[in-house]
Order: sequence, then structure tokens, then C-alpha cells
Amino acid sequence: MRLAYVLPGPLSLGHPGGKQELQRREEILQAWAAPGTTVVVREVAAGPPSIESAYEEYLSLAQTAGLLQTLQGEGFDAAIIGCFGDPCLDALYEVTEGLVVVGPGDASFHLAAMLGESFGVVTVDDGIVGPIRRQVAGSGLAARLAHVAVVQTPVLEMSGDLDELVERTCAGAREVVARGADTVVLGCMSMAFLDLGPRIEAAVGIPVVNPVQAALMTAEGRGRFGLRHSKRAYPLPRKVAAGASLPDLYVRS
Amino acid sequence: MRLAYVLPGPLSLGHPGGKQELQRREEILQAWAAPGTTVVVREVAAGPPSIESAYEEYLSLAQTAGLLQTLQGEGFDAAIIGCFGDPCLDALYEVTEGLVVVGPGDASFHLAAMLGESFGVVTVDDGIVGPIRRQVAGSGLAARLAHVAVVQTPVLEMSGDLDELVERTCAGAREVVARGADTVVLGCMSMAFLDLGPRIEAAVGIPVVNPVQAALMTAEGRGRFGLRHSKRAYPLPRKVAAGASLPDLYVRS
Amino acid sequence: MRLAYVLPGPLSLGHPGGKQELQRREEILQAWAAPGTTVVVREVAAGPPSIESAYEEYLSLAQTAGLLQTLQGEGFDAAIIGCFGDPCLDALYEVTEGLVVVGPGDASFHLAAMLGESFGVVTVDDGIVGPIRRQVAGSGLAARLAHVAVVQTPVLEMSGDLDELVERTCAGAREVVARGADTVVLGCMSMAFLDLGPRIEAAVGIPVVNPVQAALMTAEGRGRFGLRHSKRAYPLPRKVAAGASLPDLYVRS
Amino acid sequence: MRLAYVLPGPLSLGHPGGKQELQRREEILQAWAAPGTTVVVREVAAGPPSIESAYEEYLSLAQTAGLLQTLQGEGFDAAIIGCFGDPCLDALYEVTEGLVVVGPGDASFHLAAMLGESFGVVTVDDGIVGPIRRQVAGSGLAARLAHVAVVQTPVLEMSGDLDELVERTCAGAREVVARGADTVVLGCMSMAFLDLGPRIEAAVGIPVVNPVQAALMTAEGRGRFGLRHSKRAYPLPRKVAAGASLPDLYVRS
Amino acid sequence: MRLAYVLPGPLSLGHPGGKQELQRREEILQAWAAPGTTVVVREVAAGPPSIESAYEEYLSLAQTAGLLQTLQGEGFDAAIIGCFGDPCLDALYEVTEGLVVVGPGDASFHLAAMLGESFGVVTVDDGIVGPIRRQVAGSGLAARLAHVAVVQTPVLEMSGDLDELVERTCAGAREVVARGADTVVLGCMSMAFLDLGPRIEAAVGIPVVNPVQAALMTAEGRGRFGLRHSKRAYPLPRKVAAGASLPDLYVRS
Amino acid sequence: MRLAYVLPGPLSLGHPGGKQELQRREEILQAWAAPGTTVVVREVAAGPPSIESAYEEYLSLAQTAGLLQTLQGEGFDAAIIGCFGDPCLDALYEVTEGLVVVGPGDASFHLAAMLGESFGVVTVDDGIVGPIRRQVAGSGLAARLAHVAVVQTPVLEMSGDLDELVERTCAGAREVVARGADTVVLGCMSMAFLDLGPRIEAAVGIPVVNPVQAALMTAEGRGRFGLRHSKRAYPLPRKVAAGASLPDLYVRS
Repeated sequence: MRLAYVLPGPLSLGHPGGKQELQRREEILQAWAAPGTTVVVREVAAGPPSIESAYEEYLSLAQTAGLLQTLQGEGFDAAIIGCFGDPCLDALYEVTEGLVVVGPGDASFHLAAMLGESFGVVTVDDGIVGPIRRQVAGSGLAARLAHVAVVQTPVLEMSGDLDELVERTCAGAREVVARGADTVVLGCMSMAFLDLGPRIEAAVGIPVVNPVQAALMTAEGRGRFGLRHSKRAYPLPRKVAAGASLPDLYVRS
Repeated sequence: MRLAYVLPGPLSLGHPGGKQELQRREEILQAWAAPGTTVVVREVAAGPPSIESAYEEYLSLAQTAGLLQTLQGEGFDAAIIGCFGDPCLDALYEVTEGLVVVGPGDASFHLAAMLGESFGVVTVDDGIVGPIRRQVAGSGLAARLAHVAVVQTPVLEMSGDLDELVERTCAGAREVVARGADTVVLGCMSMAFLDLGPRIEAAVGIPVVNPVQAALMTAEGRGRFGLRHSKRAYPLPRKVAAGASLPDLYVRS
Repeated sequence: MRLAYVLPGPLSLGHPGGKQELQRREEILQAWAAPGTTVVVREVAAGPPSIESAYEEYLSLAQTAGLLQTLQGEGFDAAIIGCFGDPCLDALYEVTEGLVVVGPGDASFHLAAMLGESFGVVTVDDGIVGPIRRQVAGSGLAARLAHVAVVQTPVLEMSGDLDELVERTCAGAREVVARGADTVVLGCMSMAFLDLGPRIEAAVGIPVVNPVQAALMTAEGRGRFGLRHSKRAYPLPRKVAAGASLPDLYVRS
Repeated sequence: MRLAYVLPGPLSLGHPGGKQELQRREEILQAWAAPGTTVVVREVAAGPPSIESAYEEYLSLAQTAGLLQTLQGEGFDAAIIGCFGDPCLDALYEVTEGLVVVGPGDASFHLAAMLGESFGVVTVDDGIVGPIRRQVAGSGLAARLAHVAVVQTPVLEMSGDLDELVERTCAGAREVVARGADTVVLGCMSMAFLDLGPRIEAAVGIPVVNPVQAALMTAEGRGRFGLRHSKRAYPLPRKVAAGASLPDLYVRS
Repeated sequence: MRLAYVLPGPLSLGHPGGKQELQRREEILQAWAAPGTTVVVREVAAGPPSIESAYEEYLSLAQTAGLLQTLQGEGFDAAIIGCFGDPCLDALYEVTEGLVVVGPGDASFHLAAMLGESFGVVTVDDGIVGPIRRQVAGSGLAARLAHVAVVQTPVLEMSGDLDELVERTCAGAREVVARGADTVVLGCMSMAFLDLGPRIEAAVGIPVVNPVQAALMTAEGRGRFGLRHSKRAYPLPRKVAAGASLPDLYVRS
Repeated sequence: MRLAYVLPGPLSLGHPGGKQELQRREEILQAWAAPGTTVVVREVAAGPPSIESAYEEYLSLAQTAGLLQTLQGEGFDAAIIGCFGDPCLDALYEVTEGLVVVGPGDASFHLAAMLGESFGVVTVDDGIVGPIRRQVAGSGLAARLAHVAVVQTPVLEMSGDLDELVERTCAGAREVVARGADTVVLGCMSMAFLDLGPRIEAAVGIPVVNPVQAALMTAEGRGRFGLRHSKRAYPLPRKVAAGASLPDLYVRS
């Protein structure tokens, strides 16, 4: 199976590691993938370098949609949207049809709901707490969300002092446990690629859902069984169904 | 009070009436406004000519946000987003602060909830049913929504045969009543500017909420009393708080 | 537009200001009203001097309903029920038809829901916390209510030491923020007529919804557009539809 | 145990049977009561002869509250509010303390929820459907309510053609089953005193909850074990706690 | 009326009081029963000596079902499942028809919901908190549950130091009040048979629901009026309907 | 990875194919598994030959739990409970720790929720509709369930006329679509092993979730990443934590 991990913004332009960070993530994905899966990381040409607000989420749409259509044309089986916030997932569902598209947040929330009765999320900073709450509600699991805690670290500075980040994340995990959570979701892909899960699980004693892994297992499974989203729920936009291309939907005066 | 009605896409490029349609809408808005309110219609320079999918909603963000910031700078008191779907309202809340911003759908749902126990929506076509359901849920009123019916008419062809449109809309209103609604919301601004409400109310016997009117009364009231959205709920994006402009959030490789 | 503010109990008999308090409130209402609106304050002849329990709410019905019918006959466009608890709003909807009737609590909750994701209420005392919780649930917004805090001050003693009241209200606002609210509603009309909002907003940093203003903008807007409650949801009582007057519904042995 | 069945309106003035109807109901209650229970029917001196709207519900408060306080003084163990709508139950809870007070609707909904997964209500006419829906929501069981059907018969004409009434009620029961109910509640005390349950259960094949019986078993049980409502949830009105009598709460100018 | 209290596990083999504990409970039940009710305690021949986990709940099914069918054959009117967790209540409903079957937890939750707006549960230990939360949700009352507190005492050691147990239970009751409860349910039958309610109510000032009493009044009432569970909701298992006995459903290779 | 598919009842004793049916299922599982996964089918020694009621679900517990503990001892990575109803999943979570345990229903509901906005289930017969509704609620997704339809075919007769079964299942799928579903879940493992999905998807045009596939991809993914259920949510039963074996929990007089 051929799977693409799609960065909905040009991370390499903002991340201290540059293009090497993409390479590093591709290696982790490949290492975590099942035998028989080939994963490539693809970055859009333009967009927000990191996504820390609803504003930046929506901003990523056009480029990401275009890239998904390209991947569909290249015969990929599945694509993971490389942002925990699942930016514009409903719109991406609308404009794709033959491709499995996976939102890591959505996959993580549903996985967490299978592991316990109430989950918490530990994410980067205050600006994303509201969007995550609305995202969990969109996944239909608002009643299962105990709390969202933050580590107060910008996405692009996350790879700094790892021990401090582990400490902050453990503090966040303990905070969500105190609010009733029995399971915790790491609420940021950059955090997830640092693979903090095992250390946090050891320290706090509850399952830790890594959204990269949740998205990977969901994409592989759905890809293998051809489980694409329902076009009855997410129909092609009327104009596209009538023959327009995606760029045609955007006109200028 | 100075109020702007912001078209989140260049409607004039798609509508048979062209720029005159903007003029026509401005006159209706001014006629419906309270004494002391000045309304201007402002159109973004680029975007979707009409919004009939989640995809087109998100596509409208950057231009609309930019225009809102301009209006804020020009000292406007309030702005209405001129699309029933309230496209990207949370993101627009994030990037504005001194301006009252009103989503017509949100205003309409809350108004309908005050008029009865259960409301329905009659909108343009199937592609927008899912987005409207999610929008009502986002407004916190999912339990009050009885049904969404469609007239199967594209937005840009709405001004054609008015009698037929009234008939279809009445059929939709009767459909939502059959599903338990006691109040109906017109789910499209183009439909709302045709002022079908009185004819439908007369025919079906339930209150008809016109989203232009709902947005207008909400914008005027919130504008008069300075009731802006909560920045605690919708904080400025981290990068903007640190000094970036909105265009800075979008980078290219 | 002619708008009446209806006191559902003879406040002037209990308030230290007597009839002058009615005059004072009328002046504030007129000052806050839109150009073109004339507001009069009307007080029922009998009932509870202040409303601090569900018991006193229901006690206000007959006189208030009679006064609303009188106002309807006098050609008023809209009436605001002058109590945050919206006493007997469903019953008042049943027995009126040509008049816009507005409940300040209902209007405030829906307005608060438009400004943020979660609101709190600061009200007078413990006895009204339960009724307010049930009222928010009746408005369909229970999931949006974070908390109800109290200032422990009787309604009729509210105009005493204003600085102390501001301090207590700020403490209440901070309490609801600590429980997750991002917006606060002042839960008492007497509190609202003291216009504490700006001081609290300045101190606590979240929007403050004043129920007098919320009711006023809703009544003006609904009055202007003729948006009366749904008679399908609130039909005329069977006996009234058959010709009985409201007093006929009450018989004595 | 001494139990009173309190008619919240002077039924005998409206019912074709006059005072004999009270006698008839007392005999049925006594026949249905457990050994050791004495039941008396008590009618208020003034109020609505029958309750078919929210308006008439609230109208019954003052007289009913006064009678409950009298019964409390006479040493009764428990009182049943003799109207399916539980008129003003929260207010009656506020102003009583040493007396068990039972709402028949509340008791019926909770009993129905124990018998199946989803219940329906068959009641008198359209005007009471909305109030019953709000009442079920107030009992916390909205998600369990499948449907409310009506027999279109005024309360005071219910004792006419019994066979026709059975037929209409069976039609209503079948209607709620078609909407997913597995249990049905008779939504009117006058209907309940006709003891239609067994005939409907035989015809439709689902349990039929009779609100007179539901209220009786709840009142007897709560009376026996001293289970009065929570004063923490329904505190005495502030003015009453400070010494006022109930009539003191109602002043006249 | 003849009523059986069915112990779903052989309590006498685990309890320090042995068979005398059964006798003691029968005497309490008889003392609490209404005039005219005869109560017998019946213990299954095999199963968990006490139930402190979901695992032990399900383990009790076959023996309990068999005993219920025996009681049905012996002409009993009603049976109470003698465990607060209502183990396998839906399955017991499926395989019985002519017998009233009562779950004490279900009866207690619905009773508590009638006494206040929000209830808490005080139960034995951590292992049963999750099952109780799921049980309340199954009763349809999740939104009314404020909190579950634990006394950290094993079921079979509960009759040790009574004063200490009262103290711990009061601490638990205060904990649920701090989380918003206005009513408390004792979440264990062994706790209930110690009749701690009055002491806790006196100390904490909120109603205390004793599940033995709640089940007793429900069983007596439903038994008197023949209110059995809905067979439409809980049909006989297909194989049993086709003639199989309960033991036939369990085959061995 | 080593994965076991655990039949919670001795299917081979009831199925016309006998032990060959187990072999057939193992081959399908192996064919559907990812490279690197070895799947074995294991059947308990005693229990219900098929599960068509809540009664039979609970009956399967002890043997299934024992087998899971054996598999845990044999070093298996993951086990799928081979019944759509996820019988006793919470109890199985309690008594296992080092083993990934997957319920196919739970996995299917969460997967369906990722593919659309509202899903339906098509299952075997009326007796299992109630249990499935409660199961979906337990998964936290009640608001996403549109409808449960039945094919009226006993589990053990399912392999008869395949074309007729496809026809009935398509009829069920169309029924759930008519109730608002955009995705359908096959609600029985025997149905799932007949691999009807592609034919139904082709006929009805919505995604079809096969619970065998849903469980397989979930078990493989969770197994690979060591994502076991939360012991904080499902603690070991107190007696087991104190040293008892599972059989010790069941005593006989």
C-alpha cells in the first residue's frame, strides 16, 4: 500500500530542521508502518508553516486539496493530513473520492474512546484549546472529553529541551487525570513525532494515544479495505460536479 | 452606527445582476436598518462567487479576514459576514478584536430558538445540508433542529422564477413542519434578499426567520452596546500576537 | 416603534425608590433604545414586589398576562418581561398573538452563546440558582452553561453600596471563568439597571451581557421585522380559542 | 399513612359529575391504595376547572400552595398534585418542607423509563403537547421520549363515550409505538381515573403507565420512608425564610 | 403480595454472619414492607459471594435467571435483584415475563431524580465507580449524576466498625455535594441494610436514598398494579421463544 | 504479530459447517490480515452456540475470560472477541492487562463515525436491536446512530441462500439511509464473514463497515503500538488484585 503523509503547510520553512525534518518524519512513519506499506511525506508549496489557530487551519485548504487530488491521480491508496487539528477535513472529504483521507485528531479521539471511558488531550498552547474542543464535538465525542491541557510551547520550538517537554507533558497528563480522564491523547503532530508516549505512560500510568500512530493504523486499515468516506455525507461541490476544477472555484475581480 | 455587509466572495462576478446586485442588496439592507444606521456592502476582491460547500466556505477566509481588518481600521462598528454558512466565523473572531462580527446563520438559529421549540431550515441544495447541520451543532442548538430541507436551486440562479421559488420554499417549509418544526429559517442569503418570508409565513403559518434581518438586528444591537466576541474564547493567533500580520501567516517555498 | 417594559410585580411598592425607580428605569431604557423607539415602563397592579424564587415567578402570571393583552390592544409593537427569570414565558406566549414578547434571560443566553463557547451567570442569591439552571435548559443551551455564581444580595437592597456590589459581581465573574466560562451574563434586572457591565468587563476581561440591553435589542429587532413567537409551538389555550377571556379561566367555588 | 390527592383547580365546578366526581375519584384512589393508607381528595377553592395549557398550570399555584401548607399543618404524610402536568412542582417544593409532594407526570416518566427503553405519552389535545415535552425534559428524560400523541378530547368531556375514547387512545398508543416507543404513559388524570390501561395494554401489547397509580405508589413509598424533596435543590424563598407568609408575597398597589 | 429479594450470589458463604445475615436482611425487609406484603430472601446456589466489579456482575446471570424463573413458577408477584449494580437487568427482563423484576440501582436513580436536580452516589470502592457511571447512563440519567464517591471498604467487611463507616459515608456525601449534588444515593445493598441513611441525612442535610427502600417501594407498587417490563423492549431470546430452556442456551463441546 | 480471534461460544456445535466453519473463518482472517500478522481462531469449550440476546452475551463471560487469560499467557499480542455485540467487554477489560482486547462492534461504530455523519446498523433480528442500541450508547456514539434494521434471519441459518441474504441486507441498508444514515455497519460476525459488503456498497452507494475488518485493523494497530485499555478505567477486580483467580470468584454452597 502507498500512503502519503501530507503536510498542510510548508513546515520545512519554519522548522529549525528544514527539509531534514521532513526526512526525519518520513523515517519514523516508515518505521512505524506495517510491512507492505510505503510512506512518503509530501509538503504543500504554500501555507502556514505551523498551525496554532483556527485561522491557520482554514488557510491550509486550497494547497492541501490540490495536493490530495494530485496524490489521487498518482494512485496513492491513502493520505494522512499531517496536522492534529484535521484542518478542513469535511471540505477535503468533499473534493476527494477515490482516496482514503485520514484526520489524525479524529482517529485519535475514536481510538481513545475505545481504550477508556473519558480522555484528555495535552496540546501546545491556549490558542488551540477551543479548536480542539470543537473538533472533539465534531467527532461526536464531546461527552467523552474530560479536559484539554496545554504545555505552553510553540510548535516550532518543540524540539528544544526534550526532558523539559516530557515534564510539561506529564504535568498536562496529570491535569487531565485530575479532571477525570483515564486516557490521554497527544494533541500535536510535532509532539507525536518526538515519541514521548512511552515515557509519559510510564510516569502517569494511563494509555497515551500518539496521533501519528492512530492516523497510520487507521489509514492502513481503511486503505487495505477500501473504506473511503461517504459521498452521501460529503458530496462533491455542485460546481465541481458540473465540471469545474478546484482552482475554478476561486475567482478574482 | 456604521455597519458593513461583507460579501466573502466576489458575488458580482457570478451573479447575473453583476455590481447592480450589490447595489440592490445595499438598498434593501439600508431600508431594513434602524434609523441611525448606515450600511455599506463591501465585496472581497477574490474568492468563491457563491458558497455551496464546506470547501468554498474555507476558501473565503483570507480575503474576508483582510477586509474585516480594513473595516476595523476604517472605524466601522460592526460587520455582517454575507453568507448564511458563517464561513470561518471562529477564525474571523480570532483575528478581529475591536469590531463586532456577526454570522447570519448563528444569529438566525438563536433567534429561531427564541420563537419556538423546534426549527427547520430550508436551503439551496444537498451539498449544504451537512455543513448546516454541523453549523447548528456549533451554535449549540442541535437538539432544536428538526430538519433541513432543500429547494434544489443553485445560489446564482435563485433570482429566476420567483413564484416557483416561493412554491419550492413553501414545500420545504411544510416538510420541516412535518418533521416537527414550528419555525423555519431561510438558509441562504440570496434567498433572504428576495424577501420571501411574508409569503411563506402566510402560506404555512409559522414564523419565518430571514437571516439578513436576523444578522442586521444582531449587528445593530451588539454594535450599539459594544458586545464583541470573547477574546478569552477566540484569542489572537500566537504569531499575530507576536507581531505577524495576517499575510505573514502564509509562506511559500 | 412603541415598546413596553412590563414589570411583572409592583416593584414600586418594595423598592426604596418607589415610583421614582420606575421613572429611572424608563429613562435608562429610553437612553439605550435605538432612534425611533419609544419605551414606556408599565407596572402590574398586584404581584410579588421582587422575584427571587420559582414561587414568585409563577405568582406573577395573571396580572402580567392581563397587562400584555392590554398593551396588545393599545397597539404596542413589543413588550419586554421585566424579570431576568422570564416568568411564565411559555404561558405568556400562549395567550398573546399580535405582540412581540421578549424574555430577557432567554435573549441574554442566546446572545452570550454568540459571543463565546461557554457562559456563566452572576445572580442575586442561592434561591434563584436552580430556576436559572432550569431556564437555561429551557432555552436549549444547558451544554453552554459553565456555572451560576451568586452575589448574596437581595434584589430590593441592590442599590445600596454600589462599589461593594461591583466587587461581589467581579468575584462572581471570576468564579464562572474559573469554571470555564468565557462570557458572563448579569442574572438580575435590578443589577442590570445599575449598568455594572463596563466596570466588570474592564476588571475581568470578558464580555458582560446586560439583560436589559439584550432584551431591548431583541425586542426592537423582532418588533421591526414582525417576528412573533410561533403559535404552532404555543397555541392559544383551548378555552380561550373557544371564546373565554383570561379571567374566565379562573373560577371560584 | 394519610395521603391527600389535591385538585389544583375546582374540578367540581366544571365536571358534569360535580362534587360526585371528587367522591368517585376518592373511592378509586382508596381502592388502589395499599393497606394502611387513607386517601382523601381535596379541592382548592379557586382556580382553573381543568388544566389544558401552560397558562392554566401556573394559574393554579397560589391556591394549591396554600392547600399544601394546610395539609402539612394537618399532619398529612404525603400529597399528590392532581394534574398530570405537575403544575408548578418546583415552586411547591420550595414552599413545603415536612410534606412529601408528588407530581404524577414526573412519577410516570420515571416509572416508564424503568419498564422499557423509550416511552410515548397519549394525552388530551394539541395545546398540552409542548408543555408535556418540556415537562419530560425537566424530569431529565427527554432522550427517552419517543412521541406525544393526542386523542383530541377536552378534559371535561372525557367521561362521555368510553368505547370511543378507548379506541382513540389505542390509536394514540399505536402511533407512539410506530415512533419507537415500547411503553406508553396516559397523559391526563381524567383519562387515568377511567382506568383504560388494561384494555389498551391488551390491545396494543405494551405496558401502560397510569399516572394515578404511578403517583400513588410513589407517594406511599416516599411517605413511608420519609423521602422528601431536597431543600438544597428547592430552598424556601428568601422572604419566607425571613418570616413572610405565602400571601405576604403578593402585594397590591 | 409475595415478594422475593434475590441474592445474585451466595452471600452467606462470604459474609461473616453466614446464613444469619440472610435472616437479618429478611427481617429488615419485612419491617420496611407495606402491610400485606410478605418478603422472603432467596439466595442462589452458586456465584460471586459479593459483587465488586463488572466481571462479578455478569458472572451472576445464569443462577439468578434460573431462580427468577423458579419464583415466577411459584407465583411470586415481584422480585428484587439484591445487588445495587442491577447485574444483567436487561437479560433478566428478556427471560422473564409474568414477574415484576426490580433493579435497586435503577429504582434509586429515578427516585433521586424526583427529589432534586442532581444526585451523587456513595459506594464501596474504585472498582465499581465505572460500572455505576455506565449504569446511571443506562437508566437515562447521566446528565443528573454529579459524582460517585467511595468509602474504600470491601462489601464483606462493611459490618465492622459502624461509626467509622458512617463517618466515611458522610465524607463521601459531602464530596458529592461539593460537586453539585443535592441528593445522595447509597450505592451498595450491604451499606443500605445497615440503615445509615438517617444519620447521614442529619449530618449532611440532603435526602439519602436507600436502595433497599427504593427497590421495595418500586416492587410493591409495580407488583400491585401489574407493571411488568415491556416485552417489546426486551423480547424473549429467539431460541427460548422457539422452545429452548435457559440451560439449553449453554452447550459444551 | 500473533492475533487470536476468540469465539465466545462453541459456534462449531451449532453451525452447519461444524469445525470447518472455524477453519473457513481463520482463512478469511488470515487473508484479510496485514503482512506479518498470524491469526488463529480459538473457540471456548462451553457457552452459547450463537449470541442473539443480552442473555446469551453475559452467559459467555467466564469461558471467554478464561481463554483470554490463557492467550495472554501464551504471548498473544491481541485478541478479537468474535461477536458483534462485544459481550462483556468492560468485564474482559477488567480481568486482562497485558493483552490488547478488541470489540468488533465498538471498533465498527468508531470507524463508521469517521466515514460519515450518521450511521445505521443492519443486523439479524429484533432480539438484538435493543442490545445494539445500548452498545452504541456505551461507545459514546448514540447521537450518530440513525437506525437499526433487521434481516430477520437467525445467525446459524445465515449461510443458506446468499442472494436472498444480500437482498435483505440491501433492503436494510436502504431503510437506514431513509432514516438519515450515510454509512452502514453490518451488525453480525456471521454476516461479516460472508463478505457481503462490496455487493451492498455497489447497490446502495454508501460505505459498508465490515466488523471483522474493523476489528482486525484495530487489533493489528493497537497490537503494534501496544495500546491496551486503560486500567484506570477498568481496574482489576478487588479480589483478583488480592490474589484470587477468576474461578475463585465463583463459589458454590
